[in-house]
Amino acid sequence: MIRAGIIGATGYAGGELVRILKNHKDAEIVWYGSKSYIDQKYSRVYQNMFQIVEDVCSDDNLAALAKQVDVIFTATPQGFLAGLLNEEILSCTKIVDLSADYRIKDVSVYEKWYGIEHKSPQFIREAVYGLCEINRSRITADTRLIANPGCYTTCSILTAYPLVKEGLIDVNTLIVDAKSGTSGAGRGAKLQNLFCEVNENMKAYGVASHRHTPEIEEQLGYAGNCQVTLSFTPHLVPMNRGILVTEYASLKRRADGALPSYGEIRAIYDKYYGRERFIRLLEEGVCPETKWVEGSNYVDINFVIDRRTGRIILMGALDNLVKGAAGQAVQNMNLLFGLSEEEGLDLIPCFP
Amino acid sequence: MIRAGIIGATGYAGGELVRILKNHKDAEIVWYGSKSYIDQKYSRVYQNMFQIVEDVCSDDNLAALAKQVDVIFTATPQGFLAGLLNEEILSCTKIVDLSADYRIKDVSVYEKWYGIEHKSPQFIREAVYGLCEINRSRITADTRLIANPGCYTTCSILTAYPLVKEGLIDVNTLIVDAKSGTSGAGRGAKLQNLFCEVNENMKAYGVASHRHTPEIEEQLGYAGNCQVTLSFTPHLVPMNRGILVTEYASLKRRADGALPSYGEIRAIYDKYYGRERFIRLLEEGVCPETKWVEGSNYVDINFVIDRRTGRIILMGALDNLVKGAAGQAVQNMNLLFGLSEEEGLDLIPCFP
Amino acid sequence: MIRAGIIGATGYAGGELVRILKNHKDAEIVWYGSKSYIDQKYSRVYQNMFQIVEDVCSDDNLAALAKQVDVIFTATPQGFLAGLLNEEILSCTKIVDLSADYRIKDVSVYEKWYGIEHKSPQFIREAVYGLCEINRSRITADTRLIANPGCYTTCSILTAYPLVKEGLIDVNTLIVDAKSGTSGAGRGAKLQNLFCEVNENMKAYGVASHRHTPEIEEQLGYAGNCQVTLSFTPHLVPMNRGILVTEYASLKRRADGALPSYGEIRAIYDKYYGRERFIRLLEEGVCPETKWVEGSNYVDINFVIDRRTGRIILMGALDNLVKGAAGQAVQNMNLLFGLSEEEGLDLIPCFP
Amino acid sequence: MIRAGIIGATGYAGGELVRILKNHKDAEIVWYGSKSYIDQKYSRVYQNMFQIVEDVCSDDNLAALAKQVDVIFTATPQGFLAGLLNEEILSCTKIVDLSADYRIKDVSVYEKWYGIEHKSPQFIREAVYGLCEINRSRITADTRLIANPGCYTTCSILTAYPLVKEGLIDVNTLIVDAKSGTSGAGRGAKLQNLFCEVNENMKAYGVASHRHTPEIEEQLGYAGNCQVTLSFTPHLVPMNRGILVTEYASLKRRADGALPSYGEIRAIYDKYYGRERFIRLLEEGVCPETKWVEGSNYVDINFVIDRRTGRIILMGALDNLVKGAAGQAVQNMNLLFGLSEEEGLDLIPCFP
Repeated sequence: MIRAGIIGATGYAGGELVRILKNHKDAEIVWYGSKSYIDQKYSRVYQNMFQIVEDVCSDDNLAALAKQVDVIFTATPQGFLAGLLNEEILSCTKIVDLSADYRIKDVSVYEKWYGIEHKSPQFIREAVYGLCEINRSRITADTRLIANPGCYTTCSILTAYPLVKEGLIDVNTLIVDAKSGTSGAGRGAKLQNLFCEVNENMKAYGVASHRHTPEIEEQLGYAGNCQVTLSFTPHLVPMNRGILVTEYASLKRRADGALPSYGEIRAIYDKYYGRERFIRLLEEGVCPETKWVEGSNYVDINFVIDRRTGRIILMGALDNLVKGAAGQAVQNMNLLFGLSEEEGLDLIPCFP
Repeated sequence: MIRAGIIGATGYAGGELVRILKNHKDAEIVWYGSKSYIDQKYSRVYQNMFQIVEDVCSDDNLAALAKQVDVIFTATPQGFLAGLLNEEILSCTKIVDLSADYRIKDVSVYEKWYGIEHKSPQFIREAVYGLCEINRSRITADTRLIANPGCYTTCSILTAYPLVKEGLIDVNTLIVDAKSGTSGAGRGAKLQNLFCEVNENMKAYGVASHRHTPEIEEQLGYAGNCQVTLSFTPHLVPMNRGILVTEYASLKRRADGALPSYGEIRAIYDKYYGRERFIRLLEEGVCPETKWVEGSNYVDINFVIDRRTGRIILMGALDNLVKGAAGQAVQNMNLLFGLSEEEGLDLIPCFP
Repeated sequence: MIRAGIIGATGYAGGELVRILKNHKDAEIVWYGSKSYIDQKYSRVYQNMFQIVEDVCSDDNLAALAKQVDVIFTATPQGFLAGLLNEEILSCTKIVDLSADYRIKDVSVYEKWYGIEHKSPQFIREAVYGLCEINRSRITADTRLIANPGCYTTCSILTAYPLVKEGLIDVNTLIVDAKSGTSGAGRGAKLQNLFCEVNENMKAYGVASHRHTPEIEEQLGYAGNCQVTLSFTPHLVPMNRGILVTEYASLKRRADGALPSYGEIRAIYDKYYGRERFIRLLEEGVCPETKWVEGSNYVDINFVIDRRTGRIILMGALDNLVKGAAGQAVQNMNLLFGLSEEEGLDLIPCFP
Repeated sequence: MIRAGIIGATGYAGGELVRILKNHKDAEIVWYGSKSYIDQKYSRVYQNMFQIVEDVCSDDNLAALAKQVDVIFTATPQGFLAGLLNEEILSCTKIVDLSADYRIKDVSVYEKWYGIEHKSPQFIREAVYGLCEINRSRITADTRLIANPGCYTTCSILTAYPLVKEGLIDVNTLIVDAKSGTSGAGRGAKLQNLFCEVNENMKAYGVASHRHTPEIEEQLGYAGNCQVTLSFTPHLVPMNRGILVTEYASLKRRADGALPSYGEIRAIYDKYYGRERFIRLLEEGVCPETKWVEGSNYVDINFVIDRRTGRIILMGALDNLVKGAAGQAVQNMNLLFGLSEEEGLDLIPCFP
């Protein structure tokens, strides 16, 4: 049985980790870390867990926790883990970090976009970017530190990856228009996240400046073996869960000058994702909808070729708290411990 | 492995049955009956089931189905099952009926409230009202026909049952004010259920005339061994899932003229529900919220004693598609086949 | 032109006052008081007012404001006005107080339910409870202080008033089950009002202890010339605006032992409300819906007689920010200054 | 007093026309045409109009109506007006058509995208595309037929118009990612518009094939005096009202190779829209939100220059039923009859 600790267990992503791990047959949660609710019953913070979780919240003492568990999930603000991590901790336990601290390999890029100094850049190289479908081979029993990808980034990268990898689009034309439910904004008591401010409303935010941009660019850059600079625009939508990305790029033409067919592009997606448990390539003509993946670890993907403009329009949908956070974190844990990748993630989307 | 067929698999309750049974280790669905989608892939009707359910929809031929399966779930309109049921079918298979056809023992009451003639009243006596927490002992391997309770009724009855059973309230004062999400209205394409009609709106409906009224009265009447006539008012609320009932009744006073304490009443609830897996009696002061049970088979219950008025205010919350329909149906199936009652129902509520 | 000042202009009720007064031909707002946004442009706080309101927010200095305006609206927390009000202020200006400070005539009741000491009880007697349809004759050019009724109370009282006034129900059986949109909770950044906490959720709160209870009891007590003690249960519903009350009471029987007919009761409602501009008595069989009054100053009322139980079920719907707050405040202002009561309130409900 | 008739008065756009015209001091509605509700009271169809509209619904007999009114609004399905319009009708009355029948000048483009034959192409030339801010000079007392722009198109065109007009962007790179509330889908009882299907869900639809595409292209083509081919992707969002467009285009560089500044671009917007009553250019850094314009005739516009990619990201928000339909139709009516353009449109956005 894997002993797991969670730092930040009372945020939305932390809560989702609890929901998933409680049904995981090979893991048990032994530490519900929370800065705000120390010594309070976890099930008073999340009443859905009443009679399911009997534990009280612990503090967020990473060093103490490291000695007691096999894996720590840090669902914490940017800079938290970077400020505390050291070799001693990493020699005791594995860490799956849901924050951005170790996602970006170039520390100056991290510091510029996040506006904070990185306190432990020495671990950035070691950290594996935990996008399992792409980096699976690097997530092994020897891996100590996983940088679990962001919600927007998971959706944005997976939706475009095969095309970038195979050089089928002009990456300089890539535009990602992303829409997210409100749980992505976290459980902090902020005016702009109040029900009456979000409900019946819609807006873009962080335009041309959102922190997930360099993460998407870096990973697609690895895929395409090139520099990627793209436009990423997140939007806030009045729903709890779900991210939908709509991506636009100019398709490269074939040698005969024609655009590729749906089937040709689809074959590329099948090549990369055909055997992936958590990526569903929808049938031609079916657009992904966030509701179809809610509560599950799936990413639903499809595309339309627009012959009038020569563009391909890509669409991807996932649950930001599952595949975009806690589900992917557990998927990484499974790989780290040599379990079946889908263990505990057999979550059927809930509709309606 | 229990072979199960579903008639009405493409309604919301039918869809929830599929979601639950797909994760049930002792049952498999062999028939997805649907009047509207015959020969279409089930996962095209409910895209969340893409790559999870590969079957196509069958027709709703009950007689043909009966010969192939161990149990049939009928998630069908009132009158459907009553119009088709016969001894031959019941000799082949068990039936869990999610409609109201066999819930009410007095056929004249059924016909009055539902406005249709009952075509097979001879089976009403045999049918067991499948409210497991109350009628568990009667749901056995010998039972052939289960009348699965309605969503409002399950919540209304369970919330008040211990008080009525023990004679602690004046049943003539009982009032049930119920609020429901919109999935209870079904998947029919009706104007009043359009998004723009329901969203940002709230209303009572079926005032003093809703069909679940006699069902609640009958069952509470059995509990109290008396005639129960109550007011039941359902309301439509802009959310997908969830029923909340608020019930009012005058508390009987103790011999010394005082009202009972919270603890005294709580002890009664503990007596009946203390060991129930799916009923959660919340801590004093905590009001049930529908979100805390969403996606699960739980009913959350609590109460407040209003010393100013001498009333007790009861509150109960459940997910109308789970404990109010499909979850309870599976709970009944488990009992019918001698399985653990909670098999396949280990569903943790999803938040947010 | 009436010069008006608003203290608390950046709360939801304050914002609605601005919306209404900006279209009022006989009033102008000269002071946008706000504790939190002093010196900031009002239209940066409420971007809907961009290019409509050019003013910046002032502080909430009541004494200074009193000298500059004809009327002050205080949309402030309980205790604020009571702590500042004095004879000098009242000699300069009229005040319409949207808080509860002067609604309850018995100061000990106020202090018990609100848990704070009342700092200026000497003005309680003078204050007129501004439920215009009932107290219209007392709201005149001589009135200096209006206690503007609460949102739940306006709806609860108006819905039951004719029956209590005429002694047609047993007031001891009166139960008010109220449901409210979330704007009633105000614009404070509280966890329980976050989108993800409220959306897809429903709960009762303040059960048997909500502060609007004594206000309803007092006013209905005046109507019935009797002591009224009732159950009032508010619920939070995932929508921005709207209150729906469902009220239950035992109807008194006629001398012949029969219950009154719909028409007989309706005639009573017509007697009191038939000429009221803002109360709409719906046609028999039509249930009030909050959406039908959204954005307007209407209260929609109807009822059903339940002959089985001998009860009458009353239903009332209003927009909590209009008739439940700002609209009613302007209605009071109109009366105070001898204007047409409906001036500026010709607001057609917006659907969908 | 302008006598107005509405064909399609019981759809959502028709209902909004009624709401606006009822507060218009120079117009009265004399005909509430409706195919589905003939002879029924209008206020039973839209209960918000109870005691406001006393009329019953008439049929949708255009020829009969033409003789009785000064202007007809047709809020009808595509092809309806085209199938009935003739010279006689147009000699009697003015028509503001909210359908697409006369928006597209090239009849073959219309027939291809709408998949129906155009029955009266002879009137296409005469029809003026009623985007008042751009075509104001052509909407005069002599104009007989207005093609009222679509909701998506109004928002998409106005947001980009100054840049296209002045040649500041490479129009071949223009991408419009649009998000709409659900009222745009109309009041038809369709499964995909049910509350439970739309709520907590999000999807793209009509990808690379939506009918508003050629309308946007044609109008921007006139602005830029060039052929415009763009990508337009609409999305359905769980809210009642509101359209938000996010548009992407490569900015042309200045002679010195630099991108223009925010101020330079802003000056261009000011040039075209600085005196427009219904277009609000927000302050730098403020993103449009649909809630800020709800219920009003405003379009809120802003933009961000992304120096990393050389793109400009444009954002526009409007209420699809007001500026996107009924409000704009009334704005056109005002121009047709020489009234102040804003008459009856002094609608303050409602928040929250």
